[in-house]
Amino acid sequence: MIRIGIDLGGTNVTGVRLDGDEIDGHGKVATPAAGPDAVVDAIAALVDGELGGAGGAEGVGVGAPGLIDHQRGMVLAAPNLAGWDRPVPLRDRLAERLGCRVELDNDVNVGALAEHRIGAGAGAGELLAVFVGTGVGAGVVLDDRLRRGAHGHAGELGHVIVEDGGRLCGCGGRGHLEAYAGRASIEAEARRRHADGEPTALVELAGDGPVKSKVLARALEQGDRLAAELLDDAVRALGIALAGAVAVLDVELIVVGGGVPDRLGPGFVGRVEQAVRSRSFGAPGLRVVPAALGDRAGPLGAALLLGE
Amino acid sequence: MIRIGIDLGGTNVTGVRLDGDEIDGHGKVATPAAGPDAVVDAIAALVDGELGGAGGAEGVGVGAPGLIDHQRGMVLAAPNLAGWDRPVPLRDRLAERLGCRVELDNDVNVGALAEHRIGAGAGAGELLAVFVGTGVGAGVVLDDRLRRGAHGHAGELGHVIVEDGGRLCGCGGRGHLEAYAGRASIEAEARRRHADGEPTALVELAGDGPVKSKVLARALEQGDRLAAELLDDAVRALGIALAGAVAVLDVELIVVGGGVPDRLGPGFVGRVEQAVRSRSFGAPGLRVVPAALGDRAGPLGAALLLGE
Repeated sequence: MIRIGIDLGGTNVTGVRLDGDEIDGHGKVATPAAGPDAVVDAIAALVDGELGGAGGAEGVGVGAPGLIDHQRGMVLAAPNLAGWDRPVPLRDRLAERLGCRVELDNDVNVGALAEHRIGAGAGAGELLAVFVGTGVGAGVVLDDRLRRGAHGHAGELGHVIVEDGGRLCGCGGRGHLEAYAGRASIEAEARRRHADGEPTALVELAGDGPVKSKVLARALEQGDRLAAELLDDAVRALGIALAGAVAVLDVELIVVGGGVPDRLGPGFVGRVEQAVRSRSFGAPGLRVVPAALGDRAGPLGAALLLGE
Repeated sequence: MIRIGIDLGGTNVTGVRLDGDEIDGHGKVATPAAGPDAVVDAIAALVDGELGGAGGAEGVGVGAPGLIDHQRGMVLAAPNLAGWDRPVPLRDRLAERLGCRVELDNDVNVGALAEHRIGAGAGAGELLAVFVGTGVGAGVVLDDRLRRGAHGHAGELGHVIVEDGGRLCGCGGRGHLEAYAGRASIEAEARRRHADGEPTALVELAGDGPVKSKVLARALEQGDRLAAELLDDAVRALGIALAGAVAVLDVELIVVGGGVPDRLGPGFVGRVEQAVRSRSFGAPGLRVVPAALGDRAGPLGAALLLGE
């Protein structure tokens, strides 16, 4: 059974061709900045070129950033994609263009699915996979199925309140997990405090560029005080939010992935585990483990949408 | 189809006999304080007497307080039941005694099931039912089924952190929802502050007796300042914890029941709804409604366990 998976990111479109569970081909192109039409063209070219065409394949799965309506196959809002300023029926447009079945879901759900099926959660009946990168998102698999929820927004762990009235979140809310643990928020807080006269390697190393996970890791290695403090805040916030999810769901496995943990390594995940455990009630068998698939979770999980 | 439901409470054992969905009989006895053997006797007498016997019935469902192992049918710990100081295989003991199928679950799951099947959530595919009484517990129904979780502890909303390092909870943790919204915690806080010289009708009305929901309602009616403040804390805590659960699960319906809301009325539930909504992200269709069944949720939900 051939399945094609596409991860549509803000920077690149990556694709994979699966023959059963074996990777049979892969490819990558820069994400066009000219809006949905150009992106549909780029995906079609990738599928027809490096991914060997959709003929004979069961279909194409697509993971996309932003707010996705899985049921209707729509990208409702995608702030990270240039020129996507209105809802786009991406599933149906691609299905028409490629002449095959297409499935669409958001990148976080797709990543959680990949970790559940063939990654750190392989063999587990359920998991919560949290991805800590620019923002914070999670996917929840219960009874072997992705939970999407009443509005398709299940897994919005990044917007769980960890400190009521606390730091401003990118969404406009206050005190959300993402406002403490998302890379963009860590950068904003570092720049704010740097501008207020607090020296930090985070800003010195990054200069005018973004405070990437690599910069965060280097500042921590250098013993930068603000970096350590902001990371403590992030770990504590993850502990509060994840312990809450564990209390409500009693899941047995938490997978921690995304750019920040991938760069900071298992020590970071171990700290998150401690932060969850010390706040958890009646979850003796809970496991907290690093994600296994890294960037490949995107295209692989997208291909696995076809088996959902 | 005849089903018998038993609600084993700290004060009373109440029972109901269902013929289809019709109530065909009910009964009540004081809960014996002499431990498990006496309780098994009392339940058997209630079933064989007022509830018409288990012969011809599909079985007997039992809701019990405390920590329950549903799968093994054990009451692991029940601090509210006198003399239950070690695990009790209540399901199998009752099955042997009554000569019929018995199902056992905790009182909160049973209450959530009742509200889902025949109460405020009838017709909804899923809900989170939170019960605010002496403590705070919740039951989660997803895809028409009670979620019990990896260790059988799903729905422990009372132990979600709403203020990290905050008020001491009865469980020994800090800053849990229950430490702000549970009646026992409200009473402890009121007595502490009263002893510190803060006058409050809560303590004056209750005297040496417990600060029951009725006392709380009366103090609020009298415009008692501390009562109003503690209720504000409770509503805020419920808002934070429920908004977190909504972010992770994206459930469409929250049912609010238990002694406190039952006594304070729909105005309280309206305030909780506001507190959740103002903290919720992407849940436009969320409904927050009062529980419909009151005390009857216990025995009715216990009977409904047999259809699970």
